[in-house]
Amino acid sequence: MEKVAVQLGQRSYPIVIAPELLSSALAVPELSMLWRYKKVAIISNPTVAALYLPNIRQLFAQQQVIEFLLPDGEAYKNLQSFEQVNSFLLENGMPRDALLVALGGGVIGDLTGFVAACYQRGTAFLQIPTTLLSQVDSSVGGKTAVNHPLGKNMIGAFNQPQAVLIDTQVLSSLPKREFAAGMAEVIKYGLLGDAEFFVWLEQHQLAIAELQEPQLSQMISHCCQMKADIVSRDETEQGERALLNLGHTFGHAIEAWLGYGEWLHGEAVAVGMMMAFELAASRGWVHANDVIRVRALLQAFALPVAPPKGMQIADFMPYMKTDKKVKDGRMRFILPKTLGLAIIVDDVTETELQQVFAG
Amino acid sequence: MEKVAVQLGQRSYPIVIAPELLSSALAVPELSMLWRYKKVAIISNPTVAALYLPNIRQLFAQQQVIEFLLPDGEAYKNLQSFEQVNSFLLENGMPRDALLVALGGGVIGDLTGFVAACYQRGTAFLQIPTTLLSQVDSSVGGKTAVNHPLGKNMIGAFNQPQAVLIDTQVLSSLPKREFAAGMAEVIKYGLLGDAEFFVWLEQHQLAIAELQEPQLSQMISHCCQMKADIVSRDETEQGERALLNLGHTFGHAIEAWLGYGEWLHGEAVAVGMMMAFELAASRGWVHANDVIRVRALLQAFALPVAPPKGMQIADFMPYMKTDKKVKDGRMRFILPKTLGLAIIVDDVTETELQQVFAG
Repeated sequence: MEKVAVQLGQRSYPIVIAPELLSSALAVPELSMLWRYKKVAIISNPTVAALYLPNIRQLFAQQQVIEFLLPDGEAYKNLQSFEQVNSFLLENGMPRDALLVALGGGVIGDLTGFVAACYQRGTAFLQIPTTLLSQVDSSVGGKTAVNHPLGKNMIGAFNQPQAVLIDTQVLSSLPKREFAAGMAEVIKYGLLGDAEFFVWLEQHQLAIAELQEPQLSQMISHCCQMKADIVSRDETEQGERALLNLGHTFGHAIEAWLGYGEWLHGEAVAVGMMMAFELAASRGWVHANDVIRVRALLQAFALPVAPPKGMQIADFMPYMKTDKKVKDGRMRFILPKTLGLAIIVDDVTETELQQVFAG
Repeated sequence: MEKVAVQLGQRSYPIVIAPELLSSALAVPELSMLWRYKKVAIISNPTVAALYLPNIRQLFAQQQVIEFLLPDGEAYKNLQSFEQVNSFLLENGMPRDALLVALGGGVIGDLTGFVAACYQRGTAFLQIPTTLLSQVDSSVGGKTAVNHPLGKNMIGAFNQPQAVLIDTQVLSSLPKREFAAGMAEVIKYGLLGDAEFFVWLEQHQLAIAELQEPQLSQMISHCCQMKADIVSRDETEQGERALLNLGHTFGHAIEAWLGYGEWLHGEAVAVGMMMAFELAASRGWVHANDVIRVRALLQAFALPVAPPKGMQIADFMPYMKTDKKVKDGRMRFILPKTLGLAIIVDDVTETELQQVFAG
């Protein structure tokens, strides 16, 4: 069993990682505060609920539990779903001192976390991420949001959960494509600040692809620890936390251009990271060999490494110009300075992008 | 010029109170940080905008300014308006480092503050309250929210502004009925924790009704100071801040039962305070004479002192049982222990309410 503590003063919380944790969570001392809530609302989707809702019901067998299932998919991470969940909670008389449980991937986690931030001006919530992507990324750090037709995650809040429960066993039921999408974010941690971890991933890629333990738990724990450290130092993304967006400025543009839900978030991020490396290589910051290594590791997990067919750099621009990272009118990108060290730059122009990516 | 500092660590902010402040704000040192934002979005309603938008445009003459007018009234303090304002900001490319300006009463302030809490996960905002109610209450302390058909202020956030600008001169254009509604909240401050202030109000009621200075500014400043002190000690309403809800449990039920917008919030609160006093009197906590004094001062401002015609205690119950203050299934009320000292109680039963208010 791996444990990571997210240090945020009064809002600190534990992340617990283990195979079959959903069956053993009641015995984990760090999670004892979870069983004190009297009313619990589980938010999930039909696919995940069919597999794991019985486990969660058992964890909360002593509590009054209500359940809300949202249809599957990023398309439902919007204000309409936000309103639906709030209405459901009010219709069922959920008080402010209830616990909301997010059981699912990033869509469920981001939406539930945002509802928890706003329902009666703030309700406790628990993250039980069931995809690799949400386990290593969105469930940790308190970024919650819904999408808007004009941009991803444009409406949301910084809101920390009471705890994060990561059962690595659930990944065996995850479609291969979704596991790969999560690996894009895992690889990102190596690229943005930990060259050693990147090498570890190159070495253990087969064990990881086969979901072998203890490597799988170790890998997830390492990502959570890295994210927890960054978030502890910069909760609301005034500086360093922005590094976690490596690949995301390009990636969000791809998702928005295709229409949310066409590509998985991690797939778009994989391409975004490749583009960041290609841009950095053209500036002479990273070696051609690094670009090859990054591409090889992404491809080992069958991730895309080039933009969708027909998407030109001009198609990226409208989305990148309204990105949340825009400051004083300048686009900001996260670029690798070397393999394992990313920095924030605001001097990338449309002209440079055209030169690097045209043709 | 009166100044009140709300002490909340990094989120501290000034409240500046003066007649004609909208013409002199640029010269106030405490407000200098406001003129550094490059992009400004003013949210207002047609009535207020017609009177004061030119002043605000002049304050931000150096900035890029966009304006959004929401129709008048509590009925528009809902998730649909929340979505509209977010869409307006995105369509106009407002970045995260913009300043939102709430120019109007509580509806505009609460809605804009909530949008500011969520737009790109948090944008700075400025409160320019133009009703007495919002000047002494909703603009101070960072409670923001929208209503839901099942309850008032059910979806929102704690979000502090950068500053609050209170121009007492604007009250001369406020309808008498709205001024009176604001007086209900002013009187509340005396009742919940400051018997001396209640006596001051009894003594100066004529000057106040005639909007005489310096009494008007002094009165508003005193309320802001009381609220600032309470909020500094208990920002997220874990305890003491709940006292500010004196009269609100009954009051919210009245507003919801009538349909939002029928009675003004302050009118419902006036009745709520009377009911709290009558309940406390039946418990022997306050003297019959105190009840008479409270009723007399409310009536001096032509405020209602009894529930709307036809509303029985049974009609209050569904709303009071889903009130945000409900904890562990028990309704919580703020009741006067004496005139000038309120406490939180959770032992009021439906039976007691029936006995006090039946017939």
